[in-house]
Amino acid sequence: MTDRLLATYRVAAPHESARARAEALAAEQSVEMPVSAIRDERVLAEIVARVEAIRPVEGGFEADIALASTTTGMEASQLLNMLFGNCSLQPEVTLERVAFPPGYAKAFPGPRFGIAGLRELVGAPSRALTCSALKPQGSTIHHLAGLARTFALAGIDIVKDDHGLANQAYSPFAERVVAVQKAIDAANDETGGRTVYAPTFSGRPRQLREQLKAAEYAGVKAALVAPMLIGPPSFVEFREEAGMPILAHPALGGASRIAPPVLLGTLFRLFGADATIFPNHGGRFSYSRETCLALCDAARGPLDGLAPILPVPAGGMTVDRVDGMLAGYGTDTMLLIGGGLLSAGDALLERSRDFVARVHAFGNHP
Amino acid sequence: MTDRLLATYRVAAPHESARARAEALAAEQSVEMPVSAIRDERVLAEIVARVEAIRPVEGGFEADIALASTTTGMEASQLLNMLFGNCSLQPEVTLERVAFPPGYAKAFPGPRFGIAGLRELVGAPSRALTCSALKPQGSTIHHLAGLARTFALAGIDIVKDDHGLANQAYSPFAERVVAVQKAIDAANDETGGRTVYAPTFSGRPRQLREQLKAAEYAGVKAALVAPMLIGPPSFVEFREEAGMPILAHPALGGASRIAPPVLLGTLFRLFGADATIFPNHGGRFSYSRETCLALCDAARGPLDGLAPILPVPAGGMTVDRVDGMLAGYGTDTMLLIGGGLLSAGDALLERSRDFVARVHAFGNHP
Repeated sequence: MTDRLLATYRVAAPHESARARAEALAAEQSVEMPVSAIRDERVLAEIVARVEAIRPVEGGFEADIALASTTTGMEASQLLNMLFGNCSLQPEVTLERVAFPPGYAKAFPGPRFGIAGLRELVGAPSRALTCSALKPQGSTIHHLAGLARTFALAGIDIVKDDHGLANQAYSPFAERVVAVQKAIDAANDETGGRTVYAPTFSGRPRQLREQLKAAEYAGVKAALVAPMLIGPPSFVEFREEAGMPILAHPALGGASRIAPPVLLGTLFRLFGADATIFPNHGGRFSYSRETCLALCDAARGPLDGLAPILPVPAGGMTVDRVDGMLAGYGTDTMLLIGGGLLSAGDALLERSRDFVARVHAFGNHP
Repeated sequence: MTDRLLATYRVAAPHESARARAEALAAEQSVEMPVSAIRDERVLAEIVARVEAIRPVEGGFEADIALASTTTGMEASQLLNMLFGNCSLQPEVTLERVAFPPGYAKAFPGPRFGIAGLRELVGAPSRALTCSALKPQGSTIHHLAGLARTFALAGIDIVKDDHGLANQAYSPFAERVVAVQKAIDAANDETGGRTVYAPTFSGRPRQLREQLKAAEYAGVKAALVAPMLIGPPSFVEFREEAGMPILAHPALGGASRIAPPVLLGTLFRLFGADATIFPNHGGRFSYSRETCLALCDAARGPLDGLAPILPVPAGGMTVDRVDGMLAGYGTDTMLLIGGGLLSAGDALLERSRDFVARVHAFGNHP
């Protein structure tokens, strides 16, 4: 069975019909035709997905389905197709877990930097990292560069664009990255700090390539990309071409009925993210604490030798939650506070310094 | 208000809290920070999304939210980001409808061929079109080419790859398209028919470009692509580069809590599909008849001058449903029957001819 991925689906359907429903799901996610009409013995033995186990759960059942590795073509879009292509159209089905056979993940790029690479980049060997965001979109480049300077003076490790900053007329990518990077470089020179800027890359493959050139020329050292917005295979290609750590943003990714630890944890890591931003429990979004912890495990736990990546809880977080978050997630974490700093207005520098001080004070151990 | 898109969201939340919840959603989908902390008057007036209307509906409320066109950067990934990026992470929110301001859609490629172009390609000026699929994946190229020959002899208009046929070792794209196109060309020569082959394009942007070259060299005249698997902006780039009609496949697209008429109808059309495959009611999937009809309207109705595109109902369809489907959808439709033909086994040619005869017999008017 070492040539098979084990995908666990949850199906909201009566347990009496579980066997037939699971067999139908296995056909849907592999040959997509009546198995009885297949005469090729090799296809029946090696291609048709197999139902390995069925367990009753509240509201339905869970089925472990073994998908042949070869059907995924060892490529991101086809892997998603096999895991959740057609059954995405069946609202009673969710993808809960996936386990790859040994060696499978190595066919994918995986993180180039991971936690260790990000720590080296910002010069923080053991404490948790800090991150904030340039907002709101629609602001002038001058305003965004001013915010970036303030965050850098406060010693925040990574200053990222709001993921809504794309290539709009009011702050075009090419001009924005030059101005913001310059503001951060100047602040770093003054403080001796190592703040890194991560602009949002978005758009079509050719646009991504142009943005990468412009960013590298401007001295940019990290990237923010939403894999589900540009598409997972385009994300993989970006990872291949970009020589910088990539923060994955979950935009459009929460809707997919793929459990967040699988999509934002395992799959984004497989596709090459070095850090993964997710909506923390207790903020504007509804992930549970258990979901968030499972996502951290997927990001940092063993995965076929791939480097662990940084979980980045975010979404309505505030400075007074720093200790609680670090106690829960440990220090191999980057805390992202955006609106919670920006709402300080004229006191932005002070509140940003307070954020940094609290994270540093928490120390190096969870 | 002509510079705004009007997006209608359905929110499963108490109607008492509707105003506050809608305002929060408007902020989430535009500036993503507390509006009270924004001082730039231009951002407040021109960028922050506005709640235009709130209506109670069963289980919650609907809110019309006006998004500034400029925030979408007139680009596919950023349009999706503004429409459903962050709120995809809020399971109580669905995107129900979207209306573009006049002229907005013209910034996107839209369909190059549309219904008229597809009709011309297969020489069918007014009747409904027929489509079948090469399955199962895992079959040898020889087997797939044999199926294609049979479908072409039967006079099926478009023979598409199963969307699970990617670039796997057992039937690599470059070899497959040559063999299948050759089989179809030979059958067309024998019958005087005009069957067209639409292989599945998938993978990273560079791989798509290589596949396009190989397909064009082999004489391929149509393409099957799943926009949500490769990513909408990659799909747009494919549309720009491919000089052939594109059938959009809904894989991974059903999970998104964006209403199917919006995603598979309006948005796929905007991004450049010429035909859109969707799960018909009464098959293996759970779309209602109303959803299917609304999807057809979105595909074929007025959209800022963009060509109408072919709706392609599919998913567990059989030959005996032909009349009912055409009576419901009209003849500006392509019927796709895959497994329902393949299950005929040795009688595949006969059943395929029966499918074609029934569609032709239905005539030219709904």
